[in-house]
Order: sequence, then structure tokens, then C-alpha cells
Amino acid sequence: MGAPPGYRPSAWVHLLHQLPRADFQLRPVPSGFAPQEQEYQQALLLVAALAGLGLGLSLIFIAVYLIRFCCCRPPEPPGSKTPSPGGGCVTWSCIVALLAGCIGIGIGFYGNSETSDGVSQLSSALLHANHTLSAIDHLVLETVERLGEAVRTELTTLEEVLEPRTELVAAARGARRQAEAAAQQLQGLAFWQGVPLSPLQVAEDVSFVEEYRWLAYVLLLLLELLVCLFTLLGLAKQSKWLVIVMTVMSLLVLVLSWGSMGLEAATAVGLSDFCSNPDPYVLNLTQEETGLSSDILSYYFLCNQAVSNPFQQRLTLSQRALANIHSQLLGLEREAVPQFPSAQKPLLSLEETLNVTEGNFHQLVALLHCRGLHKDYGAALRGLCEDALEGLLFLLLFSLLSAGALATALCSLPRAWALFPPRNPSVLCSGSRLSEPLLPAG
Amino acid sequence: MGAPPGYRPSAWVHLLHQLPRADFQLRPVPSGFAPQEQEYQQALLLVAALAGLGLGLSLIFIAVYLIRFCCCRPPEPPGSKTPSPGGGCVTWSCIVALLAGCIGIGIGFYGNSETSDGVSQLSSALLHANHTLSAIDHLVLETVERLGEAVRTELTTLEEVLEPRTELVAAARGARRQAEAAAQQLQGLAFWQGVPLSPLQVAEDVSFVEEYRWLAYVLLLLLELLVCLFTLLGLAKQSKWLVIVMTVMSLLVLVLSWGSMGLEAATAVGLSDFCSNPDPYVLNLTQEETGLSSDILSYYFLCNQAVSNPFQQRLTLSQRALANIHSQLLGLEREAVPQFPSAQKPLLSLEETLNVTEGNFHQLVALLHCRGLHKDYGAALRGLCEDALEGLLFLLLFSLLSAGALATALCSLPRAWALFPPRNPSVLCSGSRLSEPLLPAG
Repeated sequence: MGAPPGYRPSAWVHLLHQLPRADFQLRPVPSGFAPQEQEYQQALLLVAALAGLGLGLSLIFIAVYLIRFCCCRPPEPPGSKTPSPGGGCVTWSCIVALLAGCIGIGIGFYGNSETSDGVSQLSSALLHANHTLSAIDHLVLETVERLGEAVRTELTTLEEVLEPRTELVAAARGARRQAEAAAQQLQGLAFWQGVPLSPLQVAEDVSFVEEYRWLAYVLLLLLELLVCLFTLLGLAKQSKWLVIVMTVMSLLVLVLSWGSMGLEAATAVGLSDFCSNPDPYVLNLTQEETGLSSDILSYYFLCNQAVSNPFQQRLTLSQRALANIHSQLLGLEREAVPQFPSAQKPLLSLEETLNVTEGNFHQLVALLHCRGLHKDYGAALRGLCEDALEGLLFLLLFSLLSAGALATALCSLPRAWALFPPRNPSVLCSGSRLSEPLLPAG
Repeated sequence: MGAPPGYRPSAWVHLLHQLPRADFQLRPVPSGFAPQEQEYQQALLLVAALAGLGLGLSLIFIAVYLIRFCCCRPPEPPGSKTPSPGGGCVTWSCIVALLAGCIGIGIGFYGNSETSDGVSQLSSALLHANHTLSAIDHLVLETVERLGEAVRTELTTLEEVLEPRTELVAAARGARRQAEAAAQQLQGLAFWQGVPLSPLQVAEDVSFVEEYRWLAYVLLLLLELLVCLFTLLGLAKQSKWLVIVMTVMSLLVLVLSWGSMGLEAATAVGLSDFCSNPDPYVLNLTQEETGLSSDILSYYFLCNQAVSNPFQQRLTLSQRALANIHSQLLGLEREAVPQFPSAQKPLLSLEETLNVTEGNFHQLVALLHCRGLHKDYGAALRGLCEDALEGLLFLLLFSLLSAGALATALCSLPRAWALFPPRNPSVLCSGSRLSEPLLPAG
């Protein structure tokens, strides 16, 4: 009965992980996650650079297309009665591109919220782990203090009361030794005490970064939505200045889209490498950051039959010490109370302390068991490697769609704009053409 | 150190929970969740009936509008050169309505996936709880069997070997008694054994229903998307038969939208009543279904400082019995082994059994602690009351948007269609009008 089924890398992780990676000299780089190695960093930068290449190519294509359109086929004179044969096609392709951009924006909003969900799952798992770890420390401290208090007050009183009979004093001393031994064993269980790494701090940092990432994407999505809508409005109203402004804005958003695509692709590739086998990396990193022994960390991070509980020995010893105190107190109650009635009060108080300590001990055993913390680890991994990665892929799709849509729009907008009739206030204001886009102008 | 922060009702739950409810005689009904009471069922049916009222009103409105349009203002003769003044406005309003419908469909897809997420969170929490419960049963069974085996074989051998010295035989008999007591106490911990309710079965049932709900919504959304797109195509191509078919389909989808809205509203209201205070209802229901004592159930469902561990006594007794066996075995090893070397082998084997049993005991303490199962309960509630309810509200918004959009479309489509020119193959095939929706037809 090990841990319940935990995290398993998804098909996307496998797919991305199998893509070839290369450094700046185009030598193949192994796809294990190693962000501290220069070669691996170069491989990720190269993935991001591919987006830069895409941006460059699409800019060159747009420039060549527009130059060819301007120089080789001068537009019809504005007063011409027959529209150029490709004119309607240009407007339609522009509209279709902008609608594809809008669909991309919808996908982008979905991906952004999915990524945000995944990251918030990660930080809530970290918060939960922090709660468990601080509960362990708190419980150990409380129990040890309670035992120490009992040793200092009740057991001392008991020894004083029982002084006339040496064998009873010896039994009380035995109980004292056992209580001290139990306290010492318990003290060793507070393994996270003094560890410099705080999951709470990590969760706060992650949430902080995620907040700004989320906001940046929402702004980018809204910017692109506004550009799409205002471009459509400009086309509908045949407003040259609006279309020109929106062409410039489209260029800006095109650059931003390719930039975000580079970031997303590099992050997705890095994340897939991490997610294909996260345990060794997380284990090493946590060991470096916390200085905890590897058997404790593998117990929590792996939590399977192969790894034994590193606290088993201590738990068994404290449990035995507590049981011994109980049987000694039972013996004292039987032997001493008839002769020394004043021993009854400290004995009862000691038994109550023992009961509470045993309750705390069971809670401690439950908290220390790997199940709880390993479940948090699994939830954090699922948040990062399933939801966040999936959201990232949706964002990648959004960037791709919007880059394509904006490139098409940038190619068609100047041509559509060249087809507008000369500025004529009556056209702008009448709206008579606007009102019948699809009906035959009789 | 109680359980970590669990489920808290969201603002939506509070808002929906505060809406007034009434039965068929319009007497107010308390908003506590009581699905078995007739009054409460009537209140939910009344909420669903509001959607039927909405459907009826919108159908009456559409009929009155269209009859007025047909009888009071006969359409222009088809050959007329001047389009009717409202014609363009009608087409535009139809297009805007269909676009609003498309936005609604996007929201519907999001809401459907959100609801599905919430319900799958619920069933994965149930699966996890099932895993914990069966792990407890399995572990108890294994430990009791192991102890029984040790009593039958090693302790019997030991007693035979030690027969010459009665005080050693007495110690071995003491260990046997303690082992039997521990086994008996442990057996009482398998509290889920023989319980007729299986969380696995519940999870499978929930997943089964959810699968069909999800599929039904996806089909409804796709149907509405197709209706929107084909209506737009019919308007663009000015194809009368397509617009007529799509008008009929719109009517069908309108009825489906109002129907789904009724279901969603009733479910959302019922869910908000459940979610505003789920503990008493779940506690009662589980008690009825399982027949478990209320202190066990409240321990797991509430899991706070006020509820003590109902297994504390048994755990403490088994722990003491195990510690006593250990000290007796230690005594026997010290006393008996120098005199009876053949006693060493069963003693060593018994100590190993004891170590394994203590390890199992710690695992059992961890599994029995309310933390794990309460966390699953919290996750199930969050899935149902946060994600699923939120998704349901998005679906409600979709139904509302699509009902509005379709009603507008149904009002405008016959008018738009009346404005189409008489069937003329050249218009249908040339596409010349299609290609220039926004540019002046010079």
C-alpha cells in the first residue's frame, strides 16, 4: 500500500521532450533538464531564437510583398469606376485574417487562465506543504515542552512524596528517564526546524511572478483584440487614418506576438524536460537548498515501498518510551497510592499528560508519513506539468495564429486602404454602405 | 494544529443561496438543501419553470412581431429598386445577434470544460478516498494475519523450547496474550470493512453521468455554432432555402437553449443550497448509507480540534501492547537464550515480525488520521462548489446569450429573407457581391 497513483508525464511532455536540441554551434544537446549548464541554456535560447527568425522572415515577406505591390502594380486611379479585380479578395482575406486573430485571442484567454490555474495549483500545494511542515515543528515543540514540564513539576513532586520507599523512587526515576528519552527522540523529528528554505516564501514568489505574467498576457490579448476590432471598424468606415494607425499597431503586435512565441516555446521545451523526469532534479535542488539528508528527501519525494520511513526508528523508540512510562505509572498507582495518598494527584496529572502526548504522537506520526507531503508534491507537479504546460501550448497556438493573422492583415491592409475612395465626408458619416453589407445595393 | 484551511463557500454560493424560493402555492420555502422534501423539490421545479415561462414569452413576442410585420407592412415588391428603409438595419441586427451567439458559444465551451473539470476533481477525490479506505482495510488485514501467524508458529515453538522453566513460559504466554490483544484492537480499526457504500462506485457513477452531460452540451454548442455559421452563409449567399432551414433550426435551438437554461438554473440554485453548508447533509447521508457511528464520520468530515480521534483509545492500546511484547521479548532474549540456544531463532523472527508490525502501525496511524480523508473531502467540495458551480454559471450565461441572440435572429431572419431578390442563379454563383462586403460597389 504505497502512495496513491501520483504524477505521470503526459503525452505533450513526451512529445516536446523528444524534439532535438542543439547549442549555438549546432552540436546536439542531451534533453535532460539542466538549467545551470551553459549548453542547455544555449539550446533553450536557440529555441527562442527560432521565433526571432520567424519574425525576420515574416517582416521580409511583408516588405517584399508590399514593395512588389507598390512598384510593379500601381493602384488604379481613385476615380476609376471598375474596382481592381483583386480588391474584394484583399478585403475579404483581411477580414478572415482578423477573425482568425479573434479566434486566436479566445484561445489565448483560455490558455492564459489555464496556465494561471496550473501555477496557482503549484502555489497552493506549496502552501499546504508549508502548513504540514510547520505543524510538525509546532507539534514537536509543544509535546517536548509538555513532557519537560511534567518531568520538572509532577515527577519531582512524586519523587519527594515517595522518598521514604526507595524502590518506588527508583520507579519514578525510571519514568523520568523514559520521559527524557521520549522528549529527546521526539525532538529529532522536527526535521524542518532551522531549514533556510521556506515553501511559503517560494509560493509567494511564484504567485508574484505569475501575477505579472498573467497581467502581461491579458494586456497583450486586449491590445490585439482592440487592434482587430479597430481595424475592422476602419475597414467598415473606410477611414484611412484609422487603418494606417492600426497597420502600425499591427506591426507592433506582430513583433510582440513573435516575441511571446519565442518565450513560450523556450519555456514549454524547458518545462517538458523538467516534467519528463522531475524527481532527480527536485531532489538535488532541495538537498542543496535545505541541507537535509537524502533519505528524508527521497522518502517524501518518492514515497514508495522501496524507501523506508527515516523516522521509523525514532518513532518506535518514543512509542516504547511512552508505553514504558505508562506501565511504570500504572505500577506506581497500584503500589504507592494506598500508602501515600498525596501521590495520587501528581500521578493523575502525569497520566493525563501522557494521554495528551500519545494523542500528539499519533498526530505526529500522521504528519510525518510521506503520504501527505508526497500528495502535495504530486499536486504541484500536476499543476506545473499538466495545466500550466497545456495552457502554455494554448498560448503558443494563440501566438502562432495571431502572427499569421497579423502578417496576412499587414499584407492586405495597405492594398485595401489603397482601394478606399478619396476622403469624402458624406461616406464617413452617412453609413448607408455600412448598413447593408450583404444585401444587394439595388 | 488542525486541518489546513479547507472549503469555504464562495460569493456566488452566498448570492444564489439568498434568492427567495417558493413552492407551487408560492409559499416561501427555506433555502436549506433538502432534496427529499416535496416543498424543496417544488421550489427547484419552479426555478426551472421560469425558463419555460421565458420560452413561452419569447415565442409569443416573436410570433406577434412577425405577424405584425407580415400583415401590417407587406414587403416591397421584389423588383422594387429602393430597398425598404429598415432592410439594412434588419440584416445588421441579425449579424450582430449571430455574433453575440458565437461569443455565447465560446463562453459555453469554457463553462462546459470548467464544469467538467470540477466534476472530475470530485471523482478523483472520491477515488483517492477509496484508495485510503481500502489501504486501511488491507493494512489491518495484513498486520493481523502476520501477528496471528507469529502467535501460531514462533510463540508456540518458543513455549515448547522454554518448557523446563515455568517463569520463562509465563513470559512467553504474556507476549502471546499481548499479541492477541494487539491483533484484536487492530481489527477494530478496519472501520470501512463490510460498509455497503463504495466511493469507487460513486466516482464511476458521477463520471458516467458527467460524460453524457458533457457530450450533450458539446453537441448543443456545435449545433448552435453550425446554425450561426450556416445562417451567416445563407445571408451572405442570399440563399432563401438555407435561411428558411436555419430559421427552423434556430427555433429548435431556441427551445433547447431555454430548456438547458431551466436545468442550469435549477441545478445552480440547488447546488448553492448544498454548498452553503454541506457538512450536515453529507454527514447524514453518509451515516444513512454506511451505518457508521457519527463520531467516526464527524471526525473525518469536520477534522478540527473539537472532534477527538475516535480511534485514539484503540491506537494507544495496540501501541502499548506492541511495546509490552517488545519488552517481554527483550527480557526473554536476556534470560532464555544463554540457557536455551534453540530459542534464539524464534525470538529473532518474532522481533522482526514486531518491527514490521510497528512500521505498519505507524502507516495505519497516518492513514487513519483525518487529515488525508478530510483533504479529499475538501477537494471534492471545491470541485463541486467552486469549479462546477462557476462552470454552470457560465453555461447559464451562454444559454441566456444564445436565447437572446436566437430570438433576435428569429425576428430578423424572415424580414431579411423577404428582402432577398428573387432566386437568380447568377447571384448565387457569381459571388461578386460576396467579395465586397464593405467596399463601395463603384
